[in-house]
Amino acid sequence: MKTYLECYPCFLNQSIAACKMLHLSENECKTILNKVALLIPEIDTKATPPEIGSLIHKIIREETSIQDPYKEIKRHSNQLALKIYSHLKNRVIKSDDPLLTAVKLAIAGNIIDYGAITNLDIEKEIAKILQNEDELITKEKQQYFSYQPLKKSIESAKTLLYLGDNAGEIIFDKILLEEIKTQNPQIKIHFAVRGGPIINDALEEDAITAGIHNIAEIINNGATIPGTIIDKCSEPFKKIWQNSNLIISKGQGNFESLHPSKANIYYMLIVKCQVLARDLGCSLRDIILYHEK
Amino acid sequence: MKTYLECYPCFLNQSIAACKMLHLSENECKTILNKVALLIPEIDTKATPPEIGSLIHKIIREETSIQDPYKEIKRHSNQLALKIYSHLKNRVIKSDDPLLTAVKLAIAGNIIDYGAITNLDIEKEIAKILQNEDELITKEKQQYFSYQPLKKSIESAKTLLYLGDNAGEIIFDKILLEEIKTQNPQIKIHFAVRGGPIINDALEEDAITAGIHNIAEIINNGATIPGTIIDKCSEPFKKIWQNSNLIISKGQGNFESLHPSKANIYYMLIVKCQVLARDLGCSLRDIILYHEK
Repeated sequence: MKTYLECYPCFLNQSIAACKMLHLSENECKTILNKVALLIPEIDTKATPPEIGSLIHKIIREETSIQDPYKEIKRHSNQLALKIYSHLKNRVIKSDDPLLTAVKLAIAGNIIDYGAITNLDIEKEIAKILQNEDELITKEKQQYFSYQPLKKSIESAKTLLYLGDNAGEIIFDKILLEEIKTQNPQIKIHFAVRGGPIINDALEEDAITAGIHNIAEIINNGATIPGTIIDKCSEPFKKIWQNSNLIISKGQGNFESLHPSKANIYYMLIVKCQVLARDLGCSLRDIILYHEK
Repeated sequence: MKTYLECYPCFLNQSIAACKMLHLSENECKTILNKVALLIPEIDTKATPPEIGSLIHKIIREETSIQDPYKEIKRHSNQLALKIYSHLKNRVIKSDDPLLTAVKLAIAGNIIDYGAITNLDIEKEIAKILQNEDELITKEKQQYFSYQPLKKSIESAKTLLYLGDNAGEIIFDKILLEEIKTQNPQIKIHFAVRGGPIINDALEEDAITAGIHNIAEIINNGATIPGTIIDKCSEPFKKIWQNSNLIISKGQGNFESLHPSKANIYYMLIVKCQVLARDLGCSLRDIILYHEK
């Protein structure tokens, strides 16, 4: 997705939010804000929002000398999600269409963001998503919830590349991966994480905490970007990308950096900003299972 | 009021809104956005938001070679307000406390902004403000609607300096000025406008369109700033400022540039941003009659 004009003020807002999360002084925040502002005229107009996000968070890491500012938030998100894992797993097993329920929960998990998140927020989002069956059928017709095509792809695919997004959220992803394996025991799954600490995005250690290594091969994509920019990824990742029959991409950052693409991608995300909503032709907070064709 | 960190993304948003209003191309907008971004590290941290606003709109005027980008919007706002002048005037005359009604209407007029504004918006805002009598009394106790002290000041003041804000809004101001003259026929009123075109702020020509010259002496403050920064105003304006017993200041720009002040100022405004709401300790969209003490 291109970087729209409205993304630039949002970059400043994201910088301020990160500075506040780190309890920096107003002067320290302003120094970072100044550097981010100076970046704006330098940015290649073809750069996607996650690429610019990576530059901003590089500034924050350099200015604060904190290599992983969101480490504690990620740990907390993982713990919170692990606590409800059995509960969620039970919901999937007992449902009429376990794969559908697992897909919905995986999208609901995308609500976990670096902001304040509580058990209540997650429970509310899950309840909202599990209850709106009719709405999702309407969306399927509008191609914003392509569940049936995904189901068929999962049944026949030999390989699946699953692009993870946030810490915490990946515990929800694990439930979907388990259900995919139940549907297609022969499928070879790669689970991709970021190459280095960037916002609250999942790293290898988070994927291991989630237990994903028991069900998929974890690969870091070699890039410290809150999305997936193929050109900037490692060679091993590029090889897996090229050889995957089916790709599931979680979250807005992966969407923004990949879309439009010629690959067989199913994007799962909650729409978290107006710019993306407008680009996709949907509404803020919509839950999306969008098939790139 | 100081410029808070959150004001910086807002400056970019304001620039984008101005560019879109002028139907500039995306490239033209980005060029302006780049220049505004470069300004951020250069700004004196003690500058108030209107001072920074003046620099931004200078960039827009220079880049577009349009000296008064909001001319048509100002003309439209004046026409819209003039159409309902008699209706508003009647409301004031027929009310139990004409001065109070005129004060409320003058604040309601502050809803007129450079965005899309319709008769409906104005009517809605007026109805809302005229109906919430109880709420205003509560606010008076909290010093956010100091009507009784203002009434007393008006009755005894020899001179009044009234700082105008937007075009269109000044027709509402005229009704208040007329009512002030009714209450205190001896009062000498100066009505201040900006020194040059800045956003949709009223200029001398707008004040004349409103007919304010029939009731007050119009003075331009000599500065092209969407607020009132005394140091940057002309000597004649400074003299009037110093000699005024009572000052009424309309709108957020005047508040942001004057507050805190040692002068006897009554600020009338609708709170249009979260940063100001937090600074004042009130809510977004609140209507305020705040006495600087």
